[in-house]
Amino acid sequence: MAETLTGGFTLPGEAGYEGLTLELAKKWGADVIRDSDGTELSDEIINAGYGIYSTICIIRYHNEWAKAHPQHLQQSFLMTQPVMAAQDCVEIELMKDFFAEQFKVNDSADAMRYWEVYDRTTDEKLASDAWSYDAPSGKVVISAAKKFHNYTVSFLAYRIWEEISMYNHVTNSWDKEHLMPVDPRNKEAQDYLYGWMKNWCETHPHTTVVRFTSMFYNFVWIWGSDERNRNLFSDWGSYDFTVSPQALDEFEKEYGYALCAEDFINQGKLHVTHMPAGKKQRDYMDFTNKFVIEYGKKLVDLVHEYGKKAYVFYDDSWVGVEPYGERFEQFGFDGLIKCVFSGYEARLCAGAKVETHELRLHPYLFPVGLGGAPTFAEGGDPTRDAKEYWVHVRRALLREPVDRLGLGGYLHLVEDYPDFCDYIEALMKEFRTIKSMHGGGVYTLPVTVAVLHSWGSLRSWTLSGHFHETYMHDLIHINESLAGLPVNVKFIDFEDVKNGALNEVDIVINAGKAGTAWSGGAAWTDAEVVAKMQEWVYQGGCMIGVGEPSAVEGYADYFRMAQVLGVDKDTGAKVCHGKWQFDKNTTLAAELIPQGAVIPAQNGVYLTDGTAEVLAEENGIPTATIHEFGKGKGIYLAGYQYSNVNTRMLLQLMMYAKGLDFDQNYLTDCEDTECAYYPNSDKLVVINNSDQEQHTTVNTEKGKMTFALQPFETQMKEI
Amino acid sequence: MAETLTGGFTLPGEAGYEGLTLELAKKWGADVIRDSDGTELSDEIINAGYGIYSTICIIRYHNEWAKAHPQHLQQSFLMTQPVMAAQDCVEIELMKDFFAEQFKVNDSADAMRYWEVYDRTTDEKLASDAWSYDAPSGKVVISAAKKFHNYTVSFLAYRIWEEISMYNHVTNSWDKEHLMPVDPRNKEAQDYLYGWMKNWCETHPHTTVVRFTSMFYNFVWIWGSDERNRNLFSDWGSYDFTVSPQALDEFEKEYGYALCAEDFINQGKLHVTHMPAGKKQRDYMDFTNKFVIEYGKKLVDLVHEYGKKAYVFYDDSWVGVEPYGERFEQFGFDGLIKCVFSGYEARLCAGAKVETHELRLHPYLFPVGLGGAPTFAEGGDPTRDAKEYWVHVRRALLREPVDRLGLGGYLHLVEDYPDFCDYIEALMKEFRTIKSMHGGGVYTLPVTVAVLHSWGSLRSWTLSGHFHETYMHDLIHINESLAGLPVNVKFIDFEDVKNGALNEVDIVINAGKAGTAWSGGAAWTDAEVVAKMQEWVYQGGCMIGVGEPSAVEGYADYFRMAQVLGVDKDTGAKVCHGKWQFDKNTTLAAELIPQGAVIPAQNGVYLTDGTAEVLAEENGIPTATIHEFGKGKGIYLAGYQYSNVNTRMLLQLMMYAKGLDFDQNYLTDCEDTECAYYPNSDKLVVINNSDQEQHTTVNTEKGKMTFALQPFETQMKEI
Repeated sequence: MAETLTGGFTLPGEAGYEGLTLELAKKWGADVIRDSDGTELSDEIINAGYGIYSTICIIRYHNEWAKAHPQHLQQSFLMTQPVMAAQDCVEIELMKDFFAEQFKVNDSADAMRYWEVYDRTTDEKLASDAWSYDAPSGKVVISAAKKFHNYTVSFLAYRIWEEISMYNHVTNSWDKEHLMPVDPRNKEAQDYLYGWMKNWCETHPHTTVVRFTSMFYNFVWIWGSDERNRNLFSDWGSYDFTVSPQALDEFEKEYGYALCAEDFINQGKLHVTHMPAGKKQRDYMDFTNKFVIEYGKKLVDLVHEYGKKAYVFYDDSWVGVEPYGERFEQFGFDGLIKCVFSGYEARLCAGAKVETHELRLHPYLFPVGLGGAPTFAEGGDPTRDAKEYWVHVRRALLREPVDRLGLGGYLHLVEDYPDFCDYIEALMKEFRTIKSMHGGGVYTLPVTVAVLHSWGSLRSWTLSGHFHETYMHDLIHINESLAGLPVNVKFIDFEDVKNGALNEVDIVINAGKAGTAWSGGAAWTDAEVVAKMQEWVYQGGCMIGVGEPSAVEGYADYFRMAQVLGVDKDTGAKVCHGKWQFDKNTTLAAELIPQGAVIPAQNGVYLTDGTAEVLAEENGIPTATIHEFGKGKGIYLAGYQYSNVNTRMLLQLMMYAKGLDFDQNYLTDCEDTECAYYPNSDKLVVINNSDQEQHTTVNTEKGKMTFALQPFETQMKEI
Repeated sequence: MAETLTGGFTLPGEAGYEGLTLELAKKWGADVIRDSDGTELSDEIINAGYGIYSTICIIRYHNEWAKAHPQHLQQSFLMTQPVMAAQDCVEIELMKDFFAEQFKVNDSADAMRYWEVYDRTTDEKLASDAWSYDAPSGKVVISAAKKFHNYTVSFLAYRIWEEISMYNHVTNSWDKEHLMPVDPRNKEAQDYLYGWMKNWCETHPHTTVVRFTSMFYNFVWIWGSDERNRNLFSDWGSYDFTVSPQALDEFEKEYGYALCAEDFINQGKLHVTHMPAGKKQRDYMDFTNKFVIEYGKKLVDLVHEYGKKAYVFYDDSWVGVEPYGERFEQFGFDGLIKCVFSGYEARLCAGAKVETHELRLHPYLFPVGLGGAPTFAEGGDPTRDAKEYWVHVRRALLREPVDRLGLGGYLHLVEDYPDFCDYIEALMKEFRTIKSMHGGGVYTLPVTVAVLHSWGSLRSWTLSGHFHETYMHDLIHINESLAGLPVNVKFIDFEDVKNGALNEVDIVINAGKAGTAWSGGAAWTDAEVVAKMQEWVYQGGCMIGVGEPSAVEGYADYFRMAQVLGVDKDTGAKVCHGKWQFDKNTTLAAELIPQGAVIPAQNGVYLTDGTAEVLAEENGIPTATIHEFGKGKGIYLAGYQYSNVNTRMLLQLMMYAKGLDFDQNYLTDCEDTECAYYPNSDKLVVINNSDQEQHTTVNTEKGKMTFALQPFETQMKEI
């Protein structure tokens, strides 16, 4: 098999280690060398004939200008913790709970129009003349409070420390100046940043690719004043850090109605990506996305004018970028770079509409990893780490390729880890081979599955952030399993359901806790959605419900798909209702649920009409069921956790739902292995997703093939 | 100490076993002999000089009359399971899900006015001309249904088999005629039953006490058509079996508004005592209670006219009796009899406003117990059972006495259990001694605790039925612990809170799952309740919240008492919010939480302001906390289970809240023991609540006293 020996790799270079940089560039087949946050490239590297990536975070590194124009710092609404009125007069110290190095009260007249004081006992807003702000003490004073009611103040604050800078400072004990985030919402700031960018392009002639990190607005990360509660809020998908009086005023002009502090504060809950968004939140996201693209495109065009490419890094300040939004292509980006721990992140990158897709692999070349455990330091095993991340990413790349891989960090750290250097060399060879085979597509089972949730395609593959930040949600486990399965996957929302999306799918998965964006919450009060789903299953579709699918209070059924699924959940009102007894269908269970599969239980789940086949149960409560509904099926799993065995279970349930025999071609017969067949080149790739040796057999059109695989191994064979 | 040697005991006599009856009457010190369901008394027993109890269930044993007047059978609303419209025309078979021996469709014109057909997909009622009933097939036909919507029919059904008769038949494989329940709502039925009762009194001259079992309406118990789902619904406190067109018509006249089927059906959830009742449900309960008392009093008066006493048995057909209702005394009953497994049931009986309080002890003299385990049969150990029930009841009786005990069942079964006969003899001696000491009251700590829930005093002590039917609710465990603790206990509702009830208490306990009657549900949307509670704690009170206290959606805090308790619970919207880190306060924990105490965890609980002291935690989630709030305290327990050790924990938390030292007089120093001090007689009673030997010391005004107690033993000492 002809292998592409070089290319598709971005190496983090490091001035002072020119020899190492160029040696590894050769060993790993790099075609591009990059700088990283904290490293620089020397002339020797720049002139060595490689493409040069330069990272730019456009909104930081402008402290001088920011100090001269503090009104153009980025802002956020903050809400104080509730304070009880023990007397008629209550004083509320605005900054008591917040990290003073991150926030500064914006008490300009322009901002104070948007402040709100709430009686949270009644949840009523106070008239603006019922309170006053004492700037010297930083307190809001309510002089005639209702005694023993609780009050909060929602106010605007400038963000005076850009959050990634803040995180790196605190985590790595940096002692540099705190970088301030400039808000490009105002024309004055836009002009300044544009000029700065133009100058940058002119002064960086060797740069071939400008990598934006990312655009303007960081994901929301609110720090607290107390070390015992430093992280008050963090959400990778929330827009709460994009707000300003100007933005709000412009929003009102454009959308014809005004937003207020409470639309962001939301009783202190803020906007959590895991919860369904209302119309106002959607409108505001749309408004912001338009702005980010409009001004972002100017910067991209500028970069293009200088003959450079513009890539965007999908992390950090990605808010407003929305790579799966309808307008993303308008940016004109040449590439999207995603840092990946997981398979779903690889698919997220691979599926975006952009020319070049690049993955930033883990581990980063840092002494410690994100969780604080050693990587390139005593006690660390970066090769092992790289293998474990790759095992997740590899299976996703077998289904859908990306164009490039890369690393980040301090290159000199690899000097003491020759096995890591060898492993990356081997990994890159493997990557290039897989990429090359994708030309004619990959063999996929005739199964199309749609993941149904509130965000639909806008949040394809991801929920909000990385796996380790979202592990408590069943859906991220499902997405991670789907990322490497030989099925077609799409993401749809409830409007899609009403607009005919079900016609094109075999299976719909709805997975999540009641009330969340993933389960759907109030979307299920829409009778049209319920009826469409019932009709579609009745006529042959299959719904897989996980956790509290379609759950919403207020109806005869708590799971609005209870009649389809054959199970529902008691939230308390049915504690006096008897439950169907059942015998587990051990035959069907043995067929569908592989040995070692684990299904977490869900309290209160019961059979609706007693006809569902129970595949698994815990303490008499069904945890996995299949229910015939017309010509279709409802499948229920009380919970779902990503693992090799559970992934196989999910595949088998989908194949059963679709009526496919399990002895299909191009499936391994061992849960710890998977394979992919590329018809164009007649190649079969078999992977071992475990750290143990595995043996497996694959049916092919030309007969059975058997494989013995070392831990984590990839084997490729012509059939 | 002078013991009362006889009296206060009701013996179940049995014709054919006259010798045994009279022998045991003497041994156990009986003053009254009773018949039981299934036994009769012979002349020899009746004339032996004892008081004679006769059991009457006024609404059954009238099958001949009932068959001639089927319109006077009791009724219920039933709802079919949802049926999806796969075509335009849907047929719904009314009786498909229900036990045909229990129910018969009432399709009289009078009843059909109240039938309702619902589209449960939209939850909208269909116009009455949108459906028709086909009596021959027993089906409702909807001819122009919305396709793929789900439909239900709510209809009235006669109950053709009285539920206790049904249960006994099925459980004990009886082969007698099915007894039918007569509804005394109609004058014709009232007159018939009154005449029957009069005749009964005339023909039973030897009866000294008529024991009503109970009044007219059984607790709700709906059986299903399928043996795999026989028990569709059972609730000991629900009024759904009292309904009829006549009752509904009269209700409308009296209350000025009409009730409909949905007011009972409640989307198929029916009226669950564990859920808060709305105004309509309360009005209907009030309406029914008035009727039951009005007609019940006529029967009681009749019994009195014949020189007999009238007792009422608080079980079975107790609905509408409401011994803790405001009108209960109007019945004119001379006694209340409660069958007891638990201490809270003893307190329930003891606290009712009636002259004579009698407990029906377990085990009943049946071959098997309620759970189906053998009692007076091979493998059974009735003495052991009696001890285990008595250990719960005894500690309650130390706090508040009743007047009498009794047994029920087939006396001949005890013949082979001489140790049981000896044990009952000893138990009765113990009972009479305890009763005699209560004259001058029992020493109680200066602590008054109010249990706060939706039902307040109306459901003092009980939730709905027996412990084994309500064990899933934290509150029944709390009530059971409180039943024997040396504190004053009252039960209040949310109106009481607003009307000043807090002024008279030291501690308020609110315990339950969110949305339930016990936690309070929507009652906590009332800002006045929240403010009153906050004020009361701030000024020195203590709230103990258990499980999901004061929880309601829609506010900044999920626990509306979060600011008081210092903890709240995330239901999903705060998954991105950071949580306070904490260190367990091991000193305070060692002081307050006894070794061996178990506190179940509650997912998502977090500290609000970080100042609560954590006494216990599980996987980083606080399970027991104490939070200072003004001069008062909020105490949180994530769950509560009744046990000797946990009971001691609850006592200690209450004493700590009240500021009492733990070395008070008249407390044992061993969790498995308790004591009661009776100042009038200077007697100290010490009990062993365990099946192990225990040693304990008690501080008294005259110094320390030590005790060594055999398993389950009671010791009484003058101090």
